[in-house]
Amino acid sequence: MRERVEQALRDAVSSDDAFLTEVASHLIVAGGKRVRPLFAIASAAAGGAEVTDEVVQGGVAVELVHLGSLYHDDVIDEAPTRRTVESVNARWGNLTAILAGDFLLARASEIAASLGTEVAGLLAATIGRLCEGEVGELRTAYNVDRTEDAYFSAIEGKTASLFATACRIGAIVGGLPRPEVEALTRFGLAYGMAFQIVDDVLDVTATAEELGKPAGHDLVEGVYNLPVLRALGASDDGLGDLLGAPIEGVALDKALGIIRSDGAVTSSMATARDYAATSISELDGFGDSDGAAWLRGAVDQLFARVTA
Amino acid sequence: MRERVEQALRDAVSSDDAFLTEVASHLIVAGGKRVRPLFAIASAAAGGAEVTDEVVQGGVAVELVHLGSLYHDDVIDEAPTRRTVESVNARWGNLTAILAGDFLLARASEIAASLGTEVAGLLAATIGRLCEGEVGELRTAYNVDRTEDAYFSAIEGKTASLFATACRIGAIVGGLPRPEVEALTRFGLAYGMAFQIVDDVLDVTATAEELGKPAGHDLVEGVYNLPVLRALGASDDGLGDLLGAPIEGVALDKALGIIRSDGAVTSSMATARDYAATSISELDGFGDSDGAAWLRGAVDQLFARVTA
Repeated sequence: MRERVEQALRDAVSSDDAFLTEVASHLIVAGGKRVRPLFAIASAAAGGAEVTDEVVQGGVAVELVHLGSLYHDDVIDEAPTRRTVESVNARWGNLTAILAGDFLLARASEIAASLGTEVAGLLAATIGRLCEGEVGELRTAYNVDRTEDAYFSAIEGKTASLFATACRIGAIVGGLPRPEVEALTRFGLAYGMAFQIVDDVLDVTATAEELGKPAGHDLVEGVYNLPVLRALGASDDGLGDLLGAPIEGVALDKALGIIRSDGAVTSSMATARDYAATSISELDGFGDSDGAAWLRGAVDQLFARVTA
Repeated sequence: MRERVEQALRDAVSSDDAFLTEVASHLIVAGGKRVRPLFAIASAAAGGAEVTDEVVQGGVAVELVHLGSLYHDDVIDEAPTRRTVESVNARWGNLTAILAGDFLLARASEIAASLGTEVAGLLAATIGRLCEGEVGELRTAYNVDRTEDAYFSAIEGKTASLFATACRIGAIVGGLPRPEVEALTRFGLAYGMAFQIVDDVLDVTATAEELGKPAGHDLVEGVYNLPVLRALGASDDGLGDLLGAPIEGVALDKALGIIRSDGAVTSSMATARDYAATSISELDGFGDSDGAAWLRGAVDQLFARVTA
């Protein structure tokens, strides 16, 4: 199945312009787990549908949106590397990275259009949600009064909606009955929320070696995620005085220490586990099909990273 | 008709996020001639179709693609102003400008999806062509050996394809017969080629006051357009020695003087007029309908700017 996804991804980004093909393939060649296409495929399979080329294409469209957004994120963050290779912006400049990101989004939309108006409209709306989520995150940067509502709304837009759409497209293209389409969409949404919260917890608890990047990246960027917000709400230990502006060095280590030491991490993980439980319960109607089993396994794997 | 377009444009970019709505509306509020939506409307009308809300929406989708590409272009060019107002990147930063540009493209795709798979696929393919055209231009920057073929291919992608798609969507949504859809598409493509060549000629011949920006902008950016390429091909007067790298001040004035003084401008305008004549001939089958008359008038107006 991975082979089919890889081949379809490479085919999707080939252009008459050899240079654009190279740039647009850069992060695909760099690897990746292809979680979103595999979710689309597993969703179709969970409902007993055959994994046709159209189902694979639906998953590829979602992955291309994810990749396109990474190209733009890396320009925004001025990131030097991505997936252990040089970032597109670092290698070819911002101009090329912006255009290649646009190109990936356009190819995603073109594939979605070939799968019908419902899929095309859904994918376009999801890209819009993604932008809203990212803008929402940006607007609350360095704001120590950021609410949990603002946090949940932002991660739903920037992360969870794409997982929800991956599952939904797989289910729609697979021709599943509407109640199954809706259940799989809710599964993807809840999974995506859990996924992002776990990621945010790791950003404050994991070592640089485990992350492959410096810990506290969100804190440095002013993105006050769930464990940070909960630590801010709980403590009288001066965390608020350390935040509200860019932070580094000793102050960053001190802030990370405070966040790790109180109940914020435990409480955030409990919230992630609630979302995970919700996602699992959405699969109740799918029995023990291979697709459903694979999706349940994906939820379990979320927590393998943290408890290891 | 302009009123309907303006209203539909504003509706199209409204988001639950008030800030994103403001950013996405910025260039709409700043004004613009809405040439592309009016081309979609005139194309439907040329074939005798009623100008339904769907036809207007089709034109709005194309305008949103144009606007989204301007947001990204201004980030790329680090432009301080656009349409006499502060650019989005200058006012809110590159991050917001990139995301808002993505949001405009997503809204365009969402509208296109509501108009059927053919329109959705066409719009997505056009965005892809646009990226290819811009990347093609970028790759030949500061290259004095850039061929005319490379130039024509780049402007077809970055400019003409969007006019062609505006006309095509108007014709498709208007329900015109296929031969009329094809003729109007060819009209838009030829018009777009003429439009860009005239624009490129003005960049070397007009005064800064007429342009609202410094003359020779393309030359400074290393975009060697048709009059530049023809002057390079024709002259032994040292133009090649002045180009090939960023240029300013006295050298820029000298280069502009050389390009203006030989036959390059006249020859480029002749090419623009050839494209214009082709575009007009594509309207032969549409008689004297208001739509066809409006489109012919648009072609004539292209040259009013130059001969004034």
